[in-house]
Amino acid sequence: MKYTIEVCFTPSLFAQRLTRSNFIVVVTDILRASTSIVSAFNNGVKTIIPVSDQEEAFTYKENGYLVAAEHDGLILDFADFGNSAFNFMTPEVIGKTIAYCTTNGTKAIKMASLDAEKVAIGAFLNLSILAKWLIHQQKNVVILCAGWKEKFNLEDSFYAGALVEKLSYSPDMEIICDSAHAALDLWRVGKDHPLDYIEKALHRHRLKRLGLDDVLPYSFTIDNAPVVPVLKGNKIRNVL
Amino acid sequence: MKYTIEVCFTPSLFAQRLTRSNFIVVVTDILRASTSIVSAFNNGVKTIIPVSDQEEAFTYKENGYLVAAEHDGLILDFADFGNSAFNFMTPEVIGKTIAYCTTNGTKAIKMASLDAEKVAIGAFLNLSILAKWLIHQQKNVVILCAGWKEKFNLEDSFYAGALVEKLSYSPDMEIICDSAHAALDLWRVGKDHPLDYIEKALHRHRLKRLGLDDVLPYSFTIDNAPVVPVLKGNKIRNVL
Repeated sequence: MKYTIEVCFTPSLFAQRLTRSNFIVVVTDILRASTSIVSAFNNGVKTIIPVSDQEEAFTYKENGYLVAAEHDGLILDFADFGNSAFNFMTPEVIGKTIAYCTTNGTKAIKMASLDAEKVAIGAFLNLSILAKWLIHQQKNVVILCAGWKEKFNLEDSFYAGALVEKLSYSPDMEIICDSAHAALDLWRVGKDHPLDYIEKALHRHRLKRLGLDDVLPYSFTIDNAPVVPVLKGNKIRNVL
Repeated sequence: MKYTIEVCFTPSLFAQRLTRSNFIVVVTDILRASTSIVSAFNNGVKTIIPVSDQEEAFTYKENGYLVAAEHDGLILDFADFGNSAFNFMTPEVIGKTIAYCTTNGTKAIKMASLDAEKVAIGAFLNLSILAKWLIHQQKNVVILCAGWKEKFNLEDSFYAGALVEKLSYSPDMEIICDSAHAALDLWRVGKDHPLDYIEKALHRHRLKRLGLDDVLPYSFTIDNAPVVPVLKGNKIRNVL
């Protein structure tokens, strides 16, 4: 039995995917939602609720949840944390539920959850353990890049290539689309020096302008967080 | 003064492009509309009218035009030629106007023509001469990959990378999106052995199944056809 590997470079390409049944979607948004979510679980967070706008985040705050929310790189005044992975490296978060406000990430997660059997969160931090878990599930896999305002971005596609490579090591899994081949090539071009490679990515420059690129080296650290965050209902939990 | 270089991997990503004014769109559909159109002009065709469906093609036939039209690799019974570049290597086409039926290609051309100042047709066959012409125009450039049923495809993106490389040689032109960086990387991975590289492209396998891959080596031949086909109204002509 063979399972398929497909990559969607942006959420707007998800509707045209080839994979139609028996599949898991891996959502990735390397800078920064998926890196932060993976990091949060590694640091002991119990549950994350992805929310897509400030109003929804504020409602969670009013209902007693911890809230991570920022706008243009600044922590919103009602929020407990910003969206950076570094915000979750504190004992305060252990065992807690956090409402995490992310426009791109939440949109991709919600879109994926409509059709997929499971939705997992992928980052470089949990690359190998997620690949191992995915292969163990014996399902088709669609890697959905959150992108940036519906546009292709290099860091998410680069990660997609890394995950494609790991999945391809299984004799049961097979690439079925050109996007997965292309992502794999991008990964192979830059894998020996990820930070140098991603230097040219435009979103990185946007973060840099906002003085937020301190988290970049961490975001491209491989296998630092052995967790597999999976969506159930509207909540994400670590299933390991 | 700097002019920008942007790549859209599929027509569905065109609406989100960054480039909004003073731009030329290069439409590419390597397998096979843009390769065939470039080849046709190199072989003396005077005008090409891109049409999007069989009904429209049939109307042109009734009005006395030569028509190139096929479905699933088979020449339609009312048409004069199929869509392969090889069909235009005959004296019969010299000085003629041909209605060329291509779903993906025509869709991309029509979409581009709504906003762009000019729409040019790009293939490996006219790579350098088109790049030279584009640089001379002193406009921003958007490379629009026709893709395959709204999905990313490797051959068009690979070509986009080749054109990005040529345009980047001009000090006046600057890449402004991650897609252009990625396309350039794909091109650099495969440029020394284009046919080997494209072997993994799925559309190639579809053509092969239909027994139509005789035209593949020709489609990846660089600078064999020094023409620059440009759309004016609903007609394409060589502007050189």
